[in-house]
Amino acid sequence: MKISKVEEAKRVLAPIISKTPLVHADKIHDNLWIKAENLQGTGAFKLRGAYYKLSNLTEEEKSKGVIAASAGNHAQGVAYSCMKMGVKGTIVMPKTAPLSKIEATRSYGVNVELQGDTFNDAYEYAKKLQEKTGAVFIEPFNDEDVIAGQGTIGLEILEKMPDVDIVLVPVGGGGLISGIAYAIKTLYPNCKVIGVEAENASSMKQSLEQDKIISLDTVNTIADGIAVKTPGTITYDICKKYVDEIVTVSEEEIAAAILALVEKMKMVAEGAGAVSVAAAMFHKVDIEHNKCISVLSGGNIDVNLLSKIIDLGLMKTGRKAVINMNVVDKPGNLSKVLGIISDTGANIISVNHNRIQYGVTFTQCKVEIIIETNNKKHVKQVLNELTKKGYTPQMAEYV
Amino acid sequence: MKISKVEEAKRVLAPIISKTPLVHADKIHDNLWIKAENLQGTGAFKLRGAYYKLSNLTEEEKSKGVIAASAGNHAQGVAYSCMKMGVKGTIVMPKTAPLSKIEATRSYGVNVELQGDTFNDAYEYAKKLQEKTGAVFIEPFNDEDVIAGQGTIGLEILEKMPDVDIVLVPVGGGGLISGIAYAIKTLYPNCKVIGVEAENASSMKQSLEQDKIISLDTVNTIADGIAVKTPGTITYDICKKYVDEIVTVSEEEIAAAILALVEKMKMVAEGAGAVSVAAAMFHKVDIEHNKCISVLSGGNIDVNLLSKIIDLGLMKTGRKAVINMNVVDKPGNLSKVLGIISDTGANIISVNHNRIQYGVTFTQCKVEIIIETNNKKHVKQVLNELTKKGYTPQMAEYV
Repeated sequence: MKISKVEEAKRVLAPIISKTPLVHADKIHDNLWIKAENLQGTGAFKLRGAYYKLSNLTEEEKSKGVIAASAGNHAQGVAYSCMKMGVKGTIVMPKTAPLSKIEATRSYGVNVELQGDTFNDAYEYAKKLQEKTGAVFIEPFNDEDVIAGQGTIGLEILEKMPDVDIVLVPVGGGGLISGIAYAIKTLYPNCKVIGVEAENASSMKQSLEQDKIISLDTVNTIADGIAVKTPGTITYDICKKYVDEIVTVSEEEIAAAILALVEKMKMVAEGAGAVSVAAAMFHKVDIEHNKCISVLSGGNIDVNLLSKIIDLGLMKTGRKAVINMNVVDKPGNLSKVLGIISDTGANIISVNHNRIQYGVTFTQCKVEIIIETNNKKHVKQVLNELTKKGYTPQMAEYV
Repeated sequence: MKISKVEEAKRVLAPIISKTPLVHADKIHDNLWIKAENLQGTGAFKLRGAYYKLSNLTEEEKSKGVIAASAGNHAQGVAYSCMKMGVKGTIVMPKTAPLSKIEATRSYGVNVELQGDTFNDAYEYAKKLQEKTGAVFIEPFNDEDVIAGQGTIGLEILEKMPDVDIVLVPVGGGGLISGIAYAIKTLYPNCKVIGVEAENASSMKQSLEQDKIISLDTVNTIADGIAVKTPGTITYDICKKYVDEIVTVSEEEIAAAILALVEKMKMVAEGAGAVSVAAAMFHKVDIEHNKCISVLSGGNIDVNLLSKIIDLGLMKTGRKAVINMNVVDKPGNLSKVLGIISDTGANIISVNHNRIQYGVTFTQCKVEIIIETNNKKHVKQVLNELTKKGYTPQMAEYV
């Protein structure tokens, strides 16, 4: 690897990619900036590496087309690059990939094949297909061209903030951090480059600690874009040499970062993209004394999941509550309960009234009420008012 | 008004505001760019006008402090400016303002007073308080300094894209569009500046059509930031002279734009901010032959509302469905129904099973099942399978 390669990638990518903004996240922390690769074309940084890789193929290679296997952002990055370069592409995705991602990939005009239930099945199939057709297989991370393409983010960071102290980078297979760490450490060794993994998928951290590449049996995280069981060989070597440290964040911390990005920064992040922001928010590094940039690597989150994360966040902060009660089954009783709640200023979203249920005597019925509230104090006020009037409300706790 | 005033505002604001990015919204339309003022400090453009206004106060005026009335973005813009300038501020907000906005305003160190149930009540109170204290009242839109501050967005647009054909701007009281239209029409008269109002709050459009300022009795829209009953006198005059046209968008179109911004552009918009994007998406202007910029004016949406809009969007696109059925109340029947649904690959979110309800015979019970699906075809498949097996499923339609 040479820095001139990253600089060449920058020239090649200039007409294709967006120089994504560096946004001051002062509502999260005064010392925090976000490199918003969620605003990149295709919604993630993967476009950089994929396009630079394709641009280096010979005419003969291009004529045979390319193949990739991916359930997510790499698929879209390769597909978009194929479209821009007029190269025939086949993307193998697992049948279980979210329809929104399949549609997005297809929209760039490539051939999408749905094979197997897991990424590994799709990968195996793609490898076999490649042997049969002789098309070029585009690796998602373990490839020098791909790494050099991702490294252009490092150049853009130093252009905008030459005195940055810490750069936080999500780590899956290690392609993104390899490129960024190589570029930044070569040009400005004073800056720390710190990787962030999900606690449940820390294969690079464990590999570096054990001084050899290890494989995890399972990786289970809402940050699906970095749920990688085995780091790459090239990326492992670069991380060993250039990355200062790898920290991890919990699933709850990732969810909290996604919600904070929506509420405070008005940005949509996928789990893998939010881990670097979570690391800053939850003080995994010393952000009090350092100017810190979190690379928000992508925004391709399933909106179903986003909606759930928002809901969960609302309950945790007392802006939504689920109250269960047994009430005496007498005419007017439910209406009385709802009146008490309304009087506190809470907004009733739904009521579920059930006469036949386990744990309810003949004279009682069970009610589940979902309400909108201002904060935890307000929820407590609702519970107190109900208790004062002789009811026994219980709040459903969400995990 | 002079263009030199807008240029002065630009100099004054330079150290305070973000030059927000102009993002190519090619996933919505190839000819569309978004001026992302949701990424502005305080989450909306209002900071520009408020800060420039405050910067023009005399030392004596500053020493008396300022007062503003607002339920939303103006409150945060004034509060943030007070903090930056060390001026004492009092913001009067209605008691019904969302807690998240009250907290955000308070976080800038101003005195927040909660008065009355509506914006008008808060405004009346603030005016009286101003008379008593002699503090300076900061108008939300009908003020030349405020308008000049918002006009700096027009300068930034022309800097980045000097040959833009159409600029779409949300219109409430008219402060934002007055500033932008004045700046752009003065410097580049070829560009069309088109206002966008919510159908249910089109006071400026109606005023311009009737050639006099009119007041609406009610304004009821999810775009609460532009729910203004009466345009300003200064803004009316500027719009009459510089704005080419005002178009309107429906509530459904606004919701669709909010969802598209989340899914395709990875950005969070409030209703008022999304109307300009809705106008481009739903072809209220000729975007096929023109380079078009939508000013996304702010992102301060209540996350409860955002969550609802996402949910609604999921149902409309067939990614979530609510199915109601009467089934014969026999052991094992419910389990059979759930099995049929699972076999189609749909994911069951919740089941509501009720034996006592209107329209249900003694031998039947009513079931409501909420499922996650891939698309409308998938929902149809679920309904078909159930029908084939002798059930009579009905899909709940959401408005």
